[in-house]
Amino acid sequence: MANGKSISMSVIKRLPRYYRFLGLLKEKKVQRISSLELSRQMGLTASQIRQDLNCFGGFGQQGYGYNVSMLYDEIGIILGVDNKNKTVMIGAGNLGQAISRHMSFEKRGFDLIGIFDEDKSLSGTEIRGLKVISTDELEAFCKKRSPVVAVLCVPNTKATEDLIDRLVANGIKAFWNFTHIDIKAKYPDVVVENVHLSDSLMTLCYQISAMR
Amino acid sequence: MANGKSISMSVIKRLPRYYRFLGLLKEKKVQRISSLELSRQMGLTASQIRQDLNCFGGFGQQGYGYNVSMLYDEIGIILGVDNKNKTVMIGAGNLGQAISRHMSFEKRGFDLIGIFDEDKSLSGTEIRGLKVISTDELEAFCKKRSPVVAVLCVPNTKATEDLIDRLVANGIKAFWNFTHIDIKAKYPDVVVENVHLSDSLMTLCYQISAMR
Repeated sequence: MANGKSISMSVIKRLPRYYRFLGLLKEKKVQRISSLELSRQMGLTASQIRQDLNCFGGFGQQGYGYNVSMLYDEIGIILGVDNKNKTVMIGAGNLGQAISRHMSFEKRGFDLIGIFDEDKSLSGTEIRGLKVISTDELEAFCKKRSPVVAVLCVPNTKATEDLIDRLVANGIKAFWNFTHIDIKAKYPDVVVENVHLSDSLMTLCYQISAMR
Repeated sequence: MANGKSISMSVIKRLPRYYRFLGLLKEKKVQRISSLELSRQMGLTASQIRQDLNCFGGFGQQGYGYNVSMLYDEIGIILGVDNKNKTVMIGAGNLGQAISRHMSFEKRGFDLIGIFDEDKSLSGTEIRGLKVISTDELEAFCKKRSPVVAVLCVPNTKATEDLIDRLVANGIKAFWNFTHIDIKAKYPDVVVENVHLSDSLMTLCYQISAMR
C-alpha cells in the first residue's frame, strides 16, 4: 500500500474527507474532476490535493483530471471500508443508541456485533436488530465472538476505566472513544480515535464570542 | 481579550482541551501544576503550552506553575462558557435526541430553547423539558425568541439545504453541523463547526488496517 512509504497523520485525516466529497460527486454522476475543481469544492489548494493523492500513487492523468469513481474506490481500499472489524458498542443510553442506529458502520469497515450496558433493565432491548447484553457477560461474549473494536458511549467514571481494562484484557485493540478518558496514556499500543463533542461545542462558542 | 492580538485557529482548537484537562485536575483538587507536568498529561511540549497560554496573557509564574482553578476560569471566560447563546436543535430523531439529552449545553455557553422536527407526529414529545415543535413553526418561533445558533441533526437532503436557507434568513448566525452539507460555501459569514462522525470512524478504520 502507498508504495510502502509511510503516510503522515495529517494526510490520513484528510482521506475520509476526500472519500466523502468523491462519494457526493459519484452520487451526482460526475465522472471526472480536475484537481483545481476538487480543490475549489474542498477548500484546499490544488497542489495540496496533488501532493496528498500522490502519496497513494497518483490516480490522476495530467490534463485529464481524476476519474471520480476509480479514485473513490481506491481511497476506500486504502481506508479499509470493506473490512468487517468486529465491533461492540459499550453503552445503550441516549448516545449509544443514537450512534448504533445512526452510523453506517458496515459501510465504514465495521461490523457491529454486540451492544452492552451495565443497566440490566436494558438487557434484551432491541437496537438495530441486536439485543442489549449485560456487561457481566462481556468476557464470555469476547471469548466466543472475538470483537477487536469497542465504541465507548458511557460516562467518564471510574467504572468506565475498569471496563476499559476488561476490554483490553479481552482482546479489544481499538477504541472509538466518546468519553474523556485518556486511553492512550495507559495503553499506548491500542488504537484510539477520540470524539470530544464538548470540545467542538466550545470551539463554536469561542467563534461566536469572537464574531461580536 | 488576549491583549487585542488575534489568535490562530490552531491555538483556539486546543483551548477546549486545556479547559477539559484543567476541569479534571480541579475535580481532583489539584491546586497548581507546572507546564512540564501539564504537557506530560496532555501529550504536548511544555514550550507549546507556555506559548499557547502566553497568547492570553500568561497566568503562570516562573517556577511556581499554573494556578489550576484560575487558569480554568480564565480559559472559560475566553471560550465564553458563561454566555447563553440561544440555540435551537433541528431534528428530534435518534441523533437529535441523544445530543439534546447528552450535552451540557448550559455549561458550554449555550441555552437550548427549542427542538424542531419536520415529522409532525413527534410534535409535543418532551425532550429535556422542551416540547418538540414542527418546523412549520420555525419562522414564528424565531421572530418571538430570536435564537442565534442551530444544531443540525438531520439527514443530508435537499430539504435540509432549504431548512438552512430558512434558518439563516431568520437570524441564525452559527451552526453546529452534524450533516455533510457545506454551509460555509453558501454562507461564508456564518460560523460553522462541523462534526463529521463518519470521517472519525474511517480514520479509525485506516489505523486498524495500518496496525496489521
